[in-house]
Amino acid sequence: MDSQSLTPAPPAHGSRCQVALLGFGTVGQAVARILCEHPPAGVELTHIFNRGVARKRTDWVPASVQWTDDISDVFRSGAHIVVELVGGTDPAGEWVERALDSGKSVVTANKQLIAERGAALLARARERRCHLRFEGSVAGGIPIIGALRDGLAGDRIRRVLGILNGTCNYILTSMANGDASFDEALQQAQVLGYAEADPTDDVEGYDARAKLAILCAAALRADVRPQRIATRSIRVVEAVDFAHARRLGCTIRQVSHAEGDEHGGLQATVRPTLVPRHSALAHVAGSQNIVVLQGRYGGETVFSGSGAGGGPTSVAVVSDISAVARLEPERDEGPTLRVPTRISGEFVTPHYLRFVVRDRPGIIARIAGVMEQHDINIDAVLQLPYPTKDALPFVVTVEACLPSILAEAMRHIGELDFHVQPPVDLPILGGESS
Amino acid sequence: MDSQSLTPAPPAHGSRCQVALLGFGTVGQAVARILCEHPPAGVELTHIFNRGVARKRTDWVPASVQWTDDISDVFRSGAHIVVELVGGTDPAGEWVERALDSGKSVVTANKQLIAERGAALLARARERRCHLRFEGSVAGGIPIIGALRDGLAGDRIRRVLGILNGTCNYILTSMANGDASFDEALQQAQVLGYAEADPTDDVEGYDARAKLAILCAAALRADVRPQRIATRSIRVVEAVDFAHARRLGCTIRQVSHAEGDEHGGLQATVRPTLVPRHSALAHVAGSQNIVVLQGRYGGETVFSGSGAGGGPTSVAVVSDISAVARLEPERDEGPTLRVPTRISGEFVTPHYLRFVVRDRPGIIARIAGVMEQHDINIDAVLQLPYPTKDALPFVVTVEACLPSILAEAMRHIGELDFHVQPPVDLPILGGESS
Repeated sequence: MDSQSLTPAPPAHGSRCQVALLGFGTVGQAVARILCEHPPAGVELTHIFNRGVARKRTDWVPASVQWTDDISDVFRSGAHIVVELVGGTDPAGEWVERALDSGKSVVTANKQLIAERGAALLARARERRCHLRFEGSVAGGIPIIGALRDGLAGDRIRRVLGILNGTCNYILTSMANGDASFDEALQQAQVLGYAEADPTDDVEGYDARAKLAILCAAALRADVRPQRIATRSIRVVEAVDFAHARRLGCTIRQVSHAEGDEHGGLQATVRPTLVPRHSALAHVAGSQNIVVLQGRYGGETVFSGSGAGGGPTSVAVVSDISAVARLEPERDEGPTLRVPTRISGEFVTPHYLRFVVRDRPGIIARIAGVMEQHDINIDAVLQLPYPTKDALPFVVTVEACLPSILAEAMRHIGELDFHVQPPVDLPILGGESS
Repeated sequence: MDSQSLTPAPPAHGSRCQVALLGFGTVGQAVARILCEHPPAGVELTHIFNRGVARKRTDWVPASVQWTDDISDVFRSGAHIVVELVGGTDPAGEWVERALDSGKSVVTANKQLIAERGAALLARARERRCHLRFEGSVAGGIPIIGALRDGLAGDRIRRVLGILNGTCNYILTSMANGDASFDEALQQAQVLGYAEADPTDDVEGYDARAKLAILCAAALRADVRPQRIATRSIRVVEAVDFAHARRLGCTIRQVSHAEGDEHGGLQATVRPTLVPRHSALAHVAGSQNIVVLQGRYGGETVFSGSGAGGGPTSVAVVSDISAVARLEPERDEGPTLRVPTRISGEFVTPHYLRFVVRDRPGIIARIAGVMEQHDINIDAVLQLPYPTKDALPFVVTVEACLPSILAEAMRHIGELDFHVQPPVDLPILGGESS
């Protein structure tokens, strides 16, 4: 049972609620540290599983904790809660299933697993009258899943906007602040530990789309596989785009965006986007995350904080442990997620189009001609001083239009013979949204 | 029981959970509208109490709802949850007690009542195995109480910073944007409905300190009466202060600030404060609210949204109703609030001191002399171009010092003979904090 008061109720599991930790990496160690220093009332860390556990042992973990590299030890144990911090879908998914089948509740920070198989795992948890919690899987220390489940339960959420990947935000804010190139900013992020040696998951948007899929379920009750979310790499963004964006009163962020429509459809995208410089999204610097929710009744509510790292994620995990320890056995009838009738990335927004051309007369006219054929209205043409005419960047902004029609126009324009590199189009998030 | 899944569990009160509404003003009507349009699973509005109820009846409320102006009807009814939206401590407090004594859970948005008597009412609720929830009492639609109870339960919150009064924020942002005087900004706020005819509670900080007292309990586990929180009116702020603040890279906000110390003491203040223009507090415009929490493990987490108004507050109230409807009878052992060993407003910060003087030689020297006697270091002297020497404003900033020592120095300085109006001192929130 959840507590209405200001402090946690005692555990529902008799005198002690025993916790087994799977994975003793950065987050696992941070969770263990809180459980040793300031455990929630009645909660006790009893097992730590890790491969090659011998080299992981540390002296600040009490001697009462059993270390093991045999996962079966955990399932056979008396642990009430299994905390899965191994990551990936395999074998983590199988282990979560085995834990639930052994009657143990599960707390996880595994975004891939929950994004791919969350609904099925929740159903399995309900069958076993166990709990499955995953606050740490989205936006690290920002308690957004709980807010959607409890504090905003009375609203009908219409739109989710987020910056959900700290690596991309670090790279883009570095480029915005210092006119660094993408490669320089990425390298700096790698040196500082904000980006992995292989940054594909972050840079291509796969990490963010997994988190957005979880938020689609939690906020919009929409069941969507991450692979169905239209995603674009931030690699297309160059230093020159920030200069043009500034002139337009904007900066550039990797924005995760989802909205349900009235016909049961869902629009969802993860892509580099121009956002107004006065908006909450623009104020999120470095590796921070933000989630902006638009509710029918409550209007806009904004949550921001550390999106990753051992400390913030471990707070989410320990908060989930604390809640599960206090809860009665699960008796929920289950989520009513809807599979959207249609999933698209077709947000109708203004767009920013950047061309790099060998300068000569008539280029604007030819671009304008193609736009006119596709019924797209040009809003402005912007050209900053630039030293060379051989590879001249300039920007065209167009009024709100369907991305699919714009893509068709851009395909035609891309076939013209003045380009030095392929043109780039980025959506512009309206001033009405944060 | 709280649900771990993505949608609410069915009600714990058999087939229907009946709700009685006390008060049918702005928030009451907004709550009724959600309960009629999109009620949480199993929740049913059955009673509306209001004085002179005949003139309140509206046709969008179902005929099944019983209207009454006799409060006893509510206590005698089969309602499971009483929603108190009357406001004030009397008779609301008595009604909440009677509801709990009748075995009914209570949801309220009454900040004065919870700030003054929350701990006692929570104890009474526990005795009766009823719930008492109050998400709507602080920061309207921002689900901060729930976040502290659940999503951040694993952290140890060290500091609370907030903009908790939308009226003051509206006035101060108007002054910042347009160089309006305080009186002009207040009048405009009154015309637009952001300020009451009698703005005392807002402007003097009484509203914000009640909310801060609730946050002290929820975040810092400190039991403090609102009257013990050092509070300063925003009336001391003049247009000229914004001009000087801008030069210092700051703007001015009514900041609610609380921190616990390691010896069981509590520091808490509500006062106009200089905040860096790049900080989250400075970005909160108009009547928005924000809460910035600093946790030992999770770092900084920021929540912002609409601080008042029927829509946002009603979302908080309906979310509480939804949670209570799903909860088992209360079995919490109760909060462990500590009465602080010492309550003060002694935050050691740099300060902004504004003087308005009849200009003549030697003024800075005399001010500097008094500061030196009190071991306070002057950081900078700032004087903007000003048309008259008869009432010349200028600013001195001093390095971090104890407010009580500064107050003593300012008392001496105030006795000098060159002042045209009493000097004003405002704390400057450090760049390290948001």
